[in-house]
Amino acid sequence: METTWLNTQDADFDAQLAALTAWSEERDAEVAERVQGILRDVAKRGDAALVEYTARFDRREVSAAADLVVGEDQLQAALARIPTEQREALEAAAARVRSYHEKQKQDSWSYREADGTLLGQQVTPLDRAGIYVPGGKAAYPSSVLMNALPAKVAGVNEIIMVSPAPGGELNDMVLAAAAIAGVDRFISVGGAQAVAALAYGTDTVPAVDKIVGPGNIYVAEAKRQVFGKVGIDMIAGPSEILVVCDGKTDPDWIAMDLFSQAEHDEEAQAILLCPDADYLKQVADAMETLAQTLEREAIIRTSMKNRGALIQVKDLDEAIDIANVIASEHLELSIDDAEAWAKKIRHAGAIFLGRHTPEALGDYCAGPNHVLPTSATARFSSPLGVYDFQKRSSLIGCSPEGASALAGIASPLARGESLTAHARSAEFRINKASDV
Amino acid sequence: METTWLNTQDADFDAQLAALTAWSEERDAEVAERVQGILRDVAKRGDAALVEYTARFDRREVSAAADLVVGEDQLQAALARIPTEQREALEAAAARVRSYHEKQKQDSWSYREADGTLLGQQVTPLDRAGIYVPGGKAAYPSSVLMNALPAKVAGVNEIIMVSPAPGGELNDMVLAAAAIAGVDRFISVGGAQAVAALAYGTDTVPAVDKIVGPGNIYVAEAKRQVFGKVGIDMIAGPSEILVVCDGKTDPDWIAMDLFSQAEHDEEAQAILLCPDADYLKQVADAMETLAQTLEREAIIRTSMKNRGALIQVKDLDEAIDIANVIASEHLELSIDDAEAWAKKIRHAGAIFLGRHTPEALGDYCAGPNHVLPTSATARFSSPLGVYDFQKRSSLIGCSPEGASALAGIASPLARGESLTAHARSAEFRINKASDV
Repeated sequence: METTWLNTQDADFDAQLAALTAWSEERDAEVAERVQGILRDVAKRGDAALVEYTARFDRREVSAAADLVVGEDQLQAALARIPTEQREALEAAAARVRSYHEKQKQDSWSYREADGTLLGQQVTPLDRAGIYVPGGKAAYPSSVLMNALPAKVAGVNEIIMVSPAPGGELNDMVLAAAAIAGVDRFISVGGAQAVAALAYGTDTVPAVDKIVGPGNIYVAEAKRQVFGKVGIDMIAGPSEILVVCDGKTDPDWIAMDLFSQAEHDEEAQAILLCPDADYLKQVADAMETLAQTLEREAIIRTSMKNRGALIQVKDLDEAIDIANVIASEHLELSIDDAEAWAKKIRHAGAIFLGRHTPEALGDYCAGPNHVLPTSATARFSSPLGVYDFQKRSSLIGCSPEGASALAGIASPLARGESLTAHARSAEFRINKASDV
Repeated sequence: METTWLNTQDADFDAQLAALTAWSEERDAEVAERVQGILRDVAKRGDAALVEYTARFDRREVSAAADLVVGEDQLQAALARIPTEQREALEAAAARVRSYHEKQKQDSWSYREADGTLLGQQVTPLDRAGIYVPGGKAAYPSSVLMNALPAKVAGVNEIIMVSPAPGGELNDMVLAAAAIAGVDRFISVGGAQAVAALAYGTDTVPAVDKIVGPGNIYVAEAKRQVFGKVGIDMIAGPSEILVVCDGKTDPDWIAMDLFSQAEHDEEAQAILLCPDADYLKQVADAMETLAQTLEREAIIRTSMKNRGALIQVKDLDEAIDIANVIASEHLELSIDDAEAWAKKIRHAGAIFLGRHTPEALGDYCAGPNHVLPTSATARFSSPLGVYDFQKRSSLIGCSPEGASALAGIASPLARGESLTAHARSAEFRINKASDV
């Protein structure tokens, strides 16, 4: 199988690695302009614009935006209709995802100082969250669970889900997942027009406080443009896996783990780091054999050729250093003592520990979220979580004594910044001798 | 004093309130284009571009970018040079801010399921954070503390601060604050070129993972454009205060509290809600009298006229409802039982409890951060905090038994999504009878 072979001993390895992992999301000026036009139009004309864009982009004629609403009865019908095995798997996955995310929930806290002054942080859920779920060919029910459940656990009052129905077709498993996750309102609309409706509100689509979920280039650009008006999660790049293996895992397992990422699309990135040159060859052989048995062989071959790599490292320490440089979305440590090694990882979206933890388990049902930072953004961002649907308000309650003492600090600082009203507002709270 | 008077009993009150609080940050296409040019140029030419833009925008000629670095000795010299009262105030403020933020620090956690599977979240600090601090006339040492200390508490390895020095002039209190906060590297450069240097790195300015801090329209636009390559905090709008008062606080205090926001700039917003019409008049009288005693009277009059308001409400319940609609950056509850009322607040950047807690104390030294969400973004975002400088990696470590059970859930879901490599990667981990 055609892919890139590297060795950390190569003189130009650092440059080769940088070139391999480089991903510049070049924003397309034409896309940006078209999206801006759609946003403005939906903001201005609401439902009427939504109906028109849906006809144009989803080849779907409806007489009114109300026809785009998918009722709770339709969600429940889909849940009843899908095969039992799938329903049970969705329910089991949802239970595990819910249980893990409950551990992320943050509570309000406060403390009182000796003089009676209260300081703290009040944590509240968002009022309303919008979830974008891609429709059509790449309809992923698991994404419904992963986006909706953290919002649900956070206590978001209303979860609005949008998903396009090209030609009017909806995916039963997506509807079933929405039923299980407890989505409050499902509107079958997609693209930049759906993002616009969530950001500005229309008669049919309520305006939300934050929009999360993956989408194509138009959806991503629309999210970027409405950022500020509403919150957004992240702008995702192509999916990535980095496997660190000591050469003792079944090569078939590692080959298939790499493929589970490569099969997503031609730009997905799958990289293996191993100190054992022979083992790398065994994995390459396994890849060649296994690829022929897979439906998505063509995609896999393209992504392994364009963006995949098998890299020989000096030892596991060096592998961990490289993992920290790559800051991969998914990092598999297919090695002994993976828990101990994981403590040396500074940057990764999710860390999969040991030979029995393939990324695919995390994608569906282990519990943690599968919406993860890509393109090295794990250097500064986190998996989607309950914390994305909660926000904090600082609490400050000064006792008269506390206020008086603090005003003595604030006043010279405010005057140093030439903000006299600040200074005098503080000074009003200084205890005069007459107050004592 | 000219300002807007409203009454919630007015038929069109909701529309009036919406018009009053509307703030659309219209992005200027020309600014966006100029910023894009600067970003590209600094990304390409590094230090040379930095030196040129500094000459052009800061009227400051240096022969090399190294001359822009402000050494630790200069920071310490400034700290020794400022008046004792100011130094002690800065140190006291820093100690309180540090102590409050330590409560925000999040720790890694994990738990083990009955079959031995480990799930958790590993929390790590950013490697490197960049802090933008405005220079020149509006140089705020308090902003140095508020931006740098959360990063320090988070355990960020290296804090890079940038701040312009127009005409070569630096503010001693800003330097002193940087010394106290423990800034690792201070480079006297500003504008979009400073943001570019932090995002892409130059020989003199190391590339960072996240850029925080306030700035003018060029800085804000630059942050928006580099978002994705690096993390950013928020794009701040004009500062706001909303005071809810029952009419029992000294009117002078409330007038000055409103001014402490209005004095920031002509677009700042100060609003008072009170059920007592007479009290509103008393505050208006106090405002007229006090304004004449303040240096920034002109700014105060303009901002009160353009964006300020005195609003008569039916009762405190209604005031709280309106506070939740406005979602103000600063919310003062100058009422009895403020702690109890605060529990009904769903959206606010910071809540100031009781008559002895003016916003100014929070701006400098109470402990919580003064970088807060503006323009109703408190609906979905939080004060700057330690959590902005930490990120999370999911931990998943399956035992052989756990993997086998989870694979049974993942496999039908993956096949339902037509992702066969995902399914087979999971299925490899199913225990065969032969393994038992």
